Amino acid sequence: MLIKLINPNTTTSMTELMGETARKVAAPSSEIVLATSRSGAASIEGHYDEALSVIDEITNGKPADAYVIGCFGDPGLLAAREITASPVLGIAEAAMHAATFVATSFSIVTTLERTRIISEHLVRNYGMQHHCRRVRATDVPVLELEELGSKADATILAECEKALIEDRAEAIVLGCAGMSNLVERLQQRLGVPVIDGVAAAVKVAEAIVGMGLRTSKVGDLAYPLPEAYAGKLAEYAPAHLKLRETSFPALATAVRG
Amino acid sequence: MLIKLINPNTTTSMTELMGETARKVAAPSSEIVLATSRSGAASIEGHYDEALSVIDEITNGKPADAYVIGCFGDPGLLAAREITASPVLGIAEAAMHAATFVATSFSIVTTLERTRIISEHLVRNYGMQHHCRRVRATDVPVLELEELGSKADATILAECEKALIEDRAEAIVLGCAGMSNLVERLQQRLGVPVIDGVAAAVKVAEAIVGMGLRTSKVGDLAYPLPEAYAGKLAEYAPAHLKLRETSFPALATAVRG
Amino acid sequence: MLIKLINPNTTTSMTELMGETARKVAAPSSEIVLATSRSGAASIEGHYDEALSVIDEITNGKPADAYVIGCFGDPGLLAAREITASPVLGIAEAAMHAATFVATSFSIVTTLERTRIISEHLVRNYGMQHHCRRVRATDVPVLELEELGSKADATILAECEKALIEDRAEAIVLGCAGMSNLVERLQQRLGVPVIDGVAAAVKVAEAIVGMGLRTSKVGDLAYPLPEAYAGKLAEYAPAHLKLRETSFPALATAVRG
Amino acid sequence: MLIKLINPNTTTSMTELMGETARKVAAPSSEIVLATSRSGAASIEGHYDEALSVIDEITNGKPADAYVIGCFGDPGLLAAREITASPVLGIAEAAMHAATFVATSFSIVTTLERTRIISEHLVRNYGMQHHCRRVRATDVPVLELEELGSKADATILAECEKALIEDRAEAIVLGCAGMSNLVERLQQRLGVPVIDGVAAAVKVAEAIVGMGLRTSKVGDLAYPLPEAYAGKLAEYAPAHLKLRETSFPALATAVRG
Amino acid sequence: MLIKLINPNTTTSMTELMGETARKVAAPSSEIVLATSRSGAASIEGHYDEALSVIDEITNGKPADAYVIGCFGDPGLLAAREITASPVLGIAEAAMHAATFVATSFSIVTTLERTRIISEHLVRNYGMQHHCRRVRATDVPVLELEELGSKADATILAECEKALIEDRAEAIVLGCAGMSNLVERLQQRLGVPVIDGVAAAVKVAEAIVGMGLRTSKVGDLAYPLPEAYAGKLAEYAPAHLKLRETSFPALATAVRG
Amino acid sequence: MLIKLINPNTTTSMTELMGETARKVAAPSSEIVLATSRSGAASIEGHYDEALSVIDEITNGKPADAYVIGCFGDPGLLAAREITASPVLGIAEAAMHAATFVATSFSIVTTLERTRIISEHLVRNYGMQHHCRRVRATDVPVLELEELGSKADATILAECEKALIEDRAEAIVLGCAGMSNLVERLQQRLGVPVIDGVAAAVKVAEAIVGMGLRTSKVGDLAYPLPEAYAGKLAEYAPAHLKLRETSFPALATAVRG
Repeated sequence: MLIKLINPNTTTSMTELMGETARKVAAPSSEIVLATSRSGAASIEGHYDEALSVIDEITNGKPADAYVIGCFGDPGLLAAREITASPVLGIAEAAMHAATFVATSFSIVTTLERTRIISEHLVRNYGMQHHCRRVRATDVPVLELEELGSKADATILAECEKALIEDRAEAIVLGCAGMSNLVERLQQRLGVPVIDGVAAAVKVAEAIVGMGLRTSKVGDLAYPLPEAYAGKLAEYAPAHLKLRETSFPALATAVRG
Repeated sequence: MLIKLINPNTTTSMTELMGETARKVAAPSSEIVLATSRSGAASIEGHYDEALSVIDEITNGKPADAYVIGCFGDPGLLAAREITASPVLGIAEAAMHAATFVATSFSIVTTLERTRIISEHLVRNYGMQHHCRRVRATDVPVLELEELGSKADATILAECEKALIEDRAEAIVLGCAGMSNLVERLQQRLGVPVIDGVAAAVKVAEAIVGMGLRTSKVGDLAYPLPEAYAGKLAEYAPAHLKLRETSFPALATAVRG
Repeated sequence: MLIKLINPNTTTSMTELMGETARKVAAPSSEIVLATSRSGAASIEGHYDEALSVIDEITNGKPADAYVIGCFGDPGLLAAREITASPVLGIAEAAMHAATFVATSFSIVTTLERTRIISEHLVRNYGMQHHCRRVRATDVPVLELEELGSKADATILAECEKALIEDRAEAIVLGCAGMSNLVERLQQRLGVPVIDGVAAAVKVAEAIVGMGLRTSKVGDLAYPLPEAYAGKLAEYAPAHLKLRETSFPALATAVRG
Repeated sequence: MLIKLINPNTTTSMTELMGETARKVAAPSSEIVLATSRSGAASIEGHYDEALSVIDEITNGKPADAYVIGCFGDPGLLAAREITASPVLGIAEAAMHAATFVATSFSIVTTLERTRIISEHLVRNYGMQHHCRRVRATDVPVLELEELGSKADATILAECEKALIEDRAEAIVLGCAGMSNLVERLQQRLGVPVIDGVAAAVKVAEAIVGMGLRTSKVGDLAYPLPEAYAGKLAEYAPAHLKLRETSFPALATAVRG
Repeated sequence: MLIKLINPNTTTSMTELMGETARKVAAPSSEIVLATSRSGAASIEGHYDEALSVIDEITNGKPADAYVIGCFGDPGLLAAREITASPVLGIAEAAMHAATFVATSFSIVTTLERTRIISEHLVRNYGMQHHCRRVRATDVPVLELEELGSKADATILAECEKALIEDRAEAIVLGCAGMSNLVERLQQRLGVPVIDGVAAAVKVAEAIVGMGLRTSKVGDLAYPLPEAYAGKLAEYAPAHLKLRETSFPALATAVRG
Repeated sequence: MLIKLINPNTTTSMTELMGETARKVAAPSSEIVLATSRSGAASIEGHYDEALSVIDEITNGKPADAYVIGCFGDPGLLAAREITASPVLGIAEAAMHAATFVATSFSIVTTLERTRIISEHLVRNYGMQHHCRRVRATDVPVLELEELGSKADATILAECEKALIEDRAEAIVLGCAGMSNLVERLQQRLGVPVIDGVAAAVKVAEAIVGMGLRTSKVGDLAYPLPEAYAGKLAEYAPAHLKLRETSFPALATAVRG
């Protein structure tokens, strides 16, 4: 199966890192295709960036069996689910759900203070209030994370340890795609499950495709109506999108008239 | 004070209707400026449309004292609050809050079935679960609403009456900007408060500005970071935005460093 | 429009302070009438005081277009809404709702420890759990607040700063009508929106009246039934109240039979 | 032990009916004293009535070991708990809690449509949302209930049966003190637990007193401060109340000190 | 009335302690029968232990009018309610409900850190989130509690005092049946209500039986179906249980067909 | 990887049906081992059955990489997670989580009315309240489901169609392991995703194992303490369990000390 891993910001080194993680966990039969957003912000750090990161990666190129949005804020997740029937997974969503299968509580450890509140909103929208003990930010620059044994490394570890002691968390969810190379070291040191969203999203995507499921086209996530788009955004009009047909057409058609 | 009423879709007749309502309720000292989105969908009817409707109206033209987003889904509300310190109001948000001041419960009556689920999400995000009894859709075409005494008119009225009887609603929130000309007739017939979001947002915007309040620039709604934007969206980079200075600079600077 | 600002306790200096704030923010067309409760406690500091503070100010004197209850516990708010169709606003309610329009989170800073729990109840009843980070008490005597540059002043400021750091609040709601003269100084120092309930309630009252809305008389807030009252409270019988007619009579009558 | 059963309205026939129920379930060692409110409304049917029904019965007469407020809206419950350390029970509160011990879900069946919303608020405040399936009103006049085999009787029974079928309720809570004589007949006919608040409150009061518990005087329910009361309500000033000493004085004093 | 107090673990000294407490608060007409689980763990300290602690005490021996499960995790509570129509009370459940009648907030103070999370789950399932401020563990060995003036004693007291100061709790719920002999001393020292689950469950059981209530046999708690059981658990088959008839047979039969 | 699919009841035909489904969706590298409970009830239909269904299948036989509990009530899920570090999945849990990845809302369609309330509890415990529209029961005998084109078939289909129309569900979760052979037919007819728990649990188990995650042994799900067990259940003592070592030992040991 073909899984397209989309980095909604324009930093390709980040995409490479995610790709590495994805390929490490993917099933032999899964092919991972990487995509870096060609337009938009260098990183997603707020509502404004998020609003602009609607990914034309989904509607262009070779259609994939599943898509993964590689940013912990899950930007554009519902919009993406609307324009394709292939399953779309957010990495925050996948990581939190995975955590509930191996622990009754978790804390999220992330980098920028600023992104913490976005995670807090996701926690609520995903019904994770009972599971997520706390969202913690370290203000470590993402790029420092790549150097093994760096100070950033120690800072993250210390924050995770605080999560275990102060929050009584039983698992750690890493709140940034750029942390995926820390999983093993952290897990060794902490002695609890450490969950990376990229790996989680790839494996959940495989699971959903493996069950033969596709996104529902009845109701909230039905294809956008073929209305006209004006101005600079005209090329984004749904009429121009190469929408892939859903595999459950009968009732969908009936209900949608 | 200058209030800019932004129609996030590209249908100007809709903008005119909203403008009429806004001017009817505005204080003598309030000037209402109308803006129709130059890019994007003819109407906002799903997550995809919403993701594309980030309004450059806020960052272009004469700066306003407050902005009103004239679409019941409140598209781009948090993104808009991020790029300006002037208060930004969504019409769904304003209507629901206003309803809680004159009734302990309300139902939302809207047009398209498809938009109902968006309203249901807003109800939850705005903490209105205790107040909102139900979201009801009529599937009446918006344009028919403009003809006095039309069948659409009767359909809406009938749905409102069902809301009073079946939901035991004590007030009606109209779930579409295009219904604002129905308020008086409905209120006369129903005998309960009927709330239009455009009027509500204009009056709440006046109230917030009148209190001397501006959007907080500490935390979730801080200005976007001045990072680079690539590709087609380069002109949307925050560096290019004419961001207006906040009036509360001291601590904001300290905290943001 | 005529807005009656009612101080439910019997301390007139408090009423004056609130009146000053109210007039500062009121629209030119709004007339603020002040009323100090003639019966009851010198200040509202618990459920017992609250139960006794039902205000005959609403049913006596010149009818107002809107009423504001000037105590942060919003005592008697639903009872007041029941005996008049003119909008009634509580200052806690108005302040919290206003805060959500300019920030995604706030903390309440109040004076007496004892009143903190009342605020916590209001937070829950108004659906503000997602927005209100914490209620903080300083145990500063209200009267000291009036002296500029006093120690009380510094205590309040310090508590607000703790709210920004420890709670990561993005706005401050002042939890006492007696703090309304601190708004500007605090806002200058803190760099975030600081919201006073008196100002908020006056402006929201103007907004609601400006929208032509009146309290729903169907359901929870319908006029009290004209039953007999015995004993010392006989003069409070609804039959003796000068109830103002609602402007939405049709269905209300039908439903109430 | 002495349990004072207070009818907060002025209708003595209602008090007699409640007394009968209370005595039927009371332990041999419990003495039930009946009290009818001397001031106030003939029945409690809204927020206005409720605000006026603060009961001087608690502070006058022979002190009781526990008090029961005999109105399903639990009017003045927290105020009453503030002015005495003896346990005070509301009949709605006691009935709902009792229901959770013998069923995982219940519906409330009450008389007046108007009081339904008060029950809905109590359900939420008591944390009963998961247990209470629905609040149902019959609009049967309370007085008709006293005639055995009357039409009112059949109406109530029919509504209860609907609760079992439509709501899948597993128990019935009777939402009016005047229904307490129906318990046995309904229970026979319905085959599920039927719970009357008066009986529940008397038995729970006995249980609480039997455990040696008294109302906490630290925090929310501490005695009202001895401040001055002005005007017509002067005689209600806490200074004039015959407050009974709490049996847990140590820390209470220290904290309140 | 006959109340069977069941210790779901196999430690008889614990049963004796609970029995002492139960008899101290029981009404003269209540007979307390003690039962120590003959099979299973020495103490209940996790989900695994809990799953095994289904008590045959309920279905063997002289039928009781009510059953009390003497372990703060309320193990097997719903299963027990399913196999008998006599009321079954858990001590955690009874203690928390009792606390809400004498305080608006409480904290739970327990022994083992490990059991804390079980209490947190109960808090949520019983709708106590608004009331329970925090669950606190001391890691004091239960057996040390029996020595008057021991260090364990001081540790518990200190934790309770922290609950009053840090959590602003207004009452203490003791989270372990083995603490029931500490109630009086703690209450004297703390000056707030201290609630022991054993006493609470016995008194609530008396109250429920005194109201003539039995567990609903419609829906969730209906008797188990008389199906076959295989293997080692064959003797636990419902067909072999001596199920006592419910007193509300009519509709139950009709609905269950 | 080895996945053990455990049927907690003793009906082997049910186990075969589940096995068929599991093998259809399993990855080529996954080996599915089937296990039918040797002790206990023929089917799990209530709390009593559930309490007895703690499965020695987990602690006996060849250790598996993951376990699936094949009953929609997820009986013993937390207990099972406590006694092994290998991931354990419940089929209700897996199905509901999977549904949220392809739809914003779903309804559960199950067989016995009696099991409906168990599903409702799971919905709440898994944080699925926002997603699950309704739990629907058909009272179709499970065995009839196996006959293609039977009346049972039509009944289930009709109930699913009602879920789409009345609940506006966007996906269907099948609430019984015995329905897994209906998935394809229903999906064809309904045009929306239809989710079977057995398939979902197998695929999610593969995903979790594929991510290298194991159940957290810190906190709630730590191994049971090696205490003594008495009586008939002695052989279930944790000391006798063949507990597999966790792969994250460091901190776990430190914290558990």
